[in-house]
Amino acid sequence: MTLPSFRAVQWAPDGALRIIDQRLLPGEFVERDLRSVVDVADAIRTLAVRGAPAIGVAAAMGIVAAADAERASGFLADIGALRRFVYDAAAALQSTRPTAVNLFWALDRMRALLDAAHIDVLTLAAALRAEAEAIRAEDEAMCEALGRHGATLLKDGMRVLTHCNAGALATAGIGTALAPVYAAHAAGLRVEVFADETRPLLQGARLTAWELTRAGVPVTVITDGTAASLMGAGRVDLVLVGADRIAANGDAANKIGTYALAVLAKHHKIPFVVVAPSSSVDAQTASGEAIPIEQRDATEIAQLGERRVAAAGATVYNPAFDVTPAALITHIVTEDGVLCAPYHFDRATLSLPPA
Amino acid sequence: MTLPSFRAVQWAPDGALRIIDQRLLPGEFVERDLRSVVDVADAIRTLAVRGAPAIGVAAAMGIVAAADAERASGFLADIGALRRFVYDAAAALQSTRPTAVNLFWALDRMRALLDAAHIDVLTLAAALRAEAEAIRAEDEAMCEALGRHGATLLKDGMRVLTHCNAGALATAGIGTALAPVYAAHAAGLRVEVFADETRPLLQGARLTAWELTRAGVPVTVITDGTAASLMGAGRVDLVLVGADRIAANGDAANKIGTYALAVLAKHHKIPFVVVAPSSSVDAQTASGEAIPIEQRDATEIAQLGERRVAAAGATVYNPAFDVTPAALITHIVTEDGVLCAPYHFDRATLSLPPA
Repeated sequence: MTLPSFRAVQWAPDGALRIIDQRLLPGEFVERDLRSVVDVADAIRTLAVRGAPAIGVAAAMGIVAAADAERASGFLADIGALRRFVYDAAAALQSTRPTAVNLFWALDRMRALLDAAHIDVLTLAAALRAEAEAIRAEDEAMCEALGRHGATLLKDGMRVLTHCNAGALATAGIGTALAPVYAAHAAGLRVEVFADETRPLLQGARLTAWELTRAGVPVTVITDGTAASLMGAGRVDLVLVGADRIAANGDAANKIGTYALAVLAKHHKIPFVVVAPSSSVDAQTASGEAIPIEQRDATEIAQLGERRVAAAGATVYNPAFDVTPAALITHIVTEDGVLCAPYHFDRATLSLPPA
Repeated sequence: MTLPSFRAVQWAPDGALRIIDQRLLPGEFVERDLRSVVDVADAIRTLAVRGAPAIGVAAAMGIVAAADAERASGFLADIGALRRFVYDAAAALQSTRPTAVNLFWALDRMRALLDAAHIDVLTLAAALRAEAEAIRAEDEAMCEALGRHGATLLKDGMRVLTHCNAGALATAGIGTALAPVYAAHAAGLRVEVFADETRPLLQGARLTAWELTRAGVPVTVITDGTAASLMGAGRVDLVLVGADRIAANGDAANKIGTYALAVLAKHHKIPFVVVAPSSSVDAQTASGEAIPIEQRDATEIAQLGERRVAAAGATVYNPAFDVTPAALITHIVTEDGVLCAPYHFDRATLSLPPA
């Protein structure tokens, strides 16, 4: 009956960005303290830190950690130099991953401070750190709210199917899609989870199973192709997934394989619920068709470790995400509550990179 | 514009059972000559030889290869000893895998010879070899007929989605679900294939991609979770899959993940076609619910090679097959032609093991 106590993204005692290197889980639990933009960008690009909310928080905190490390080494002594550093850092981080909108949202918040009047480099540096901390703390609080609202959809004995990892490891708090599970579990409800292993990078098997077992939530790992037969056998009561970007009409981009679950859930008359903070909403994008989908390297599918598994002459198609149309989404849970269709999201303009 | 020239199951020059060790593909092409029941059973159980038709053929041929090796060593000198050997061998092979019905069908054909009157051990041995060769040759001919009939569903430029491996590697001929692709390709039609990698054992990435590229058929490997978004984008014209057992009403057991494709195909209004020889039909089983589903070892999902990928406390659920209801199957192609719903199969009684 415990909530996750580890944090995927947090401040190190010296002000660096501390992440859990998720590439090594579940075999090894290694935390890394990052103090440069290159290291933060690399951690995001290689999925050492991943999950839409965590990426946004890590980017904001990473800029501050890197700027303070530079200042501690005697650089960025004037406010102009710090402004240029933050602009350049934001540009570098903006290009790491294209789909999750939380990244652009967090970078926009950091950049917005640069336009405000600050007396000197110290006040700007303090404002940047305060904003990054606000982004982190808000994410943690949003997770708690997602859990509270989402738990109203759960009943004792329910069997939840989830995909990829939208848990504590994907956020600065207790997660998005898994937050309702944790909240219900902490309240004494028996909830069990089927975790799609989630090919190609196995975030479900490696990460979701790891954090749920740590919290004492019963979890069963299945291949992505097994969900349908579980649904057909009446063994799934609810599907809970996260989102990397939600368009104005409610279409939601999430890990490849999510759309299949939505179609299967509809066929089997099972509620299909997206759980995401408002930082995942992109009201500028009218519908899912306009969401850019990251294409990842063929080797993620063609190789297992060093071993080639796909024939040499075969093409590999490896999109990281797919888009689930709003029509298939029973509910969207945000920190504001449980929303039902028709969805219409409306929020401030983001500085999105060209698609 | 070539048909597969390799054979997954064939006679070695000395009369042994020669198989391709499919556990090593696509990295290594290794043929193994098997001369004992233990080796044949092991090859079937460990998926060195796999695919419903190939398992049946291998079992029949393996019994003959083993019996002849025993006789060459001076054993099984009288007809009673040979009869007992074949009964015991059939019993051992019967227990290797529970779902594919072709195995029981082939073993029944071999056992049936034991009841007939034979003058002596030599005539019985000759009859057994002739029957195993008939089973092999019929399978090869059925594949050719499946290709001919199934190709009538293909048009120039079509994009076919398939799951697992129902190709030449799964049969004694050019395959079941892939036979129409080969036939169309040989006739000069441009057909391309999306191959689900097919977790956990990656038969799609390892085997389907290997044999299609060898034959010059363009193939793209995708994760199992990617099929839905391809369908949603209008990039799939037809789904072709094999079957390990077809019940009397047309419900079809096939590799786990097949049922998901059937639901997705229906949602996207794409034809979903099962291609299988009549040796895969089990008319004694009224519907799919009664088909026993093989449960395989958790390590197939929990480990990648030697590396543990699923958290230690997590349960793993690893059924090898699922059942697609006949209502989702647009056509069933057998060697007799292209069948449409409602399906009703009727054939001789099989000696099925207890479910």
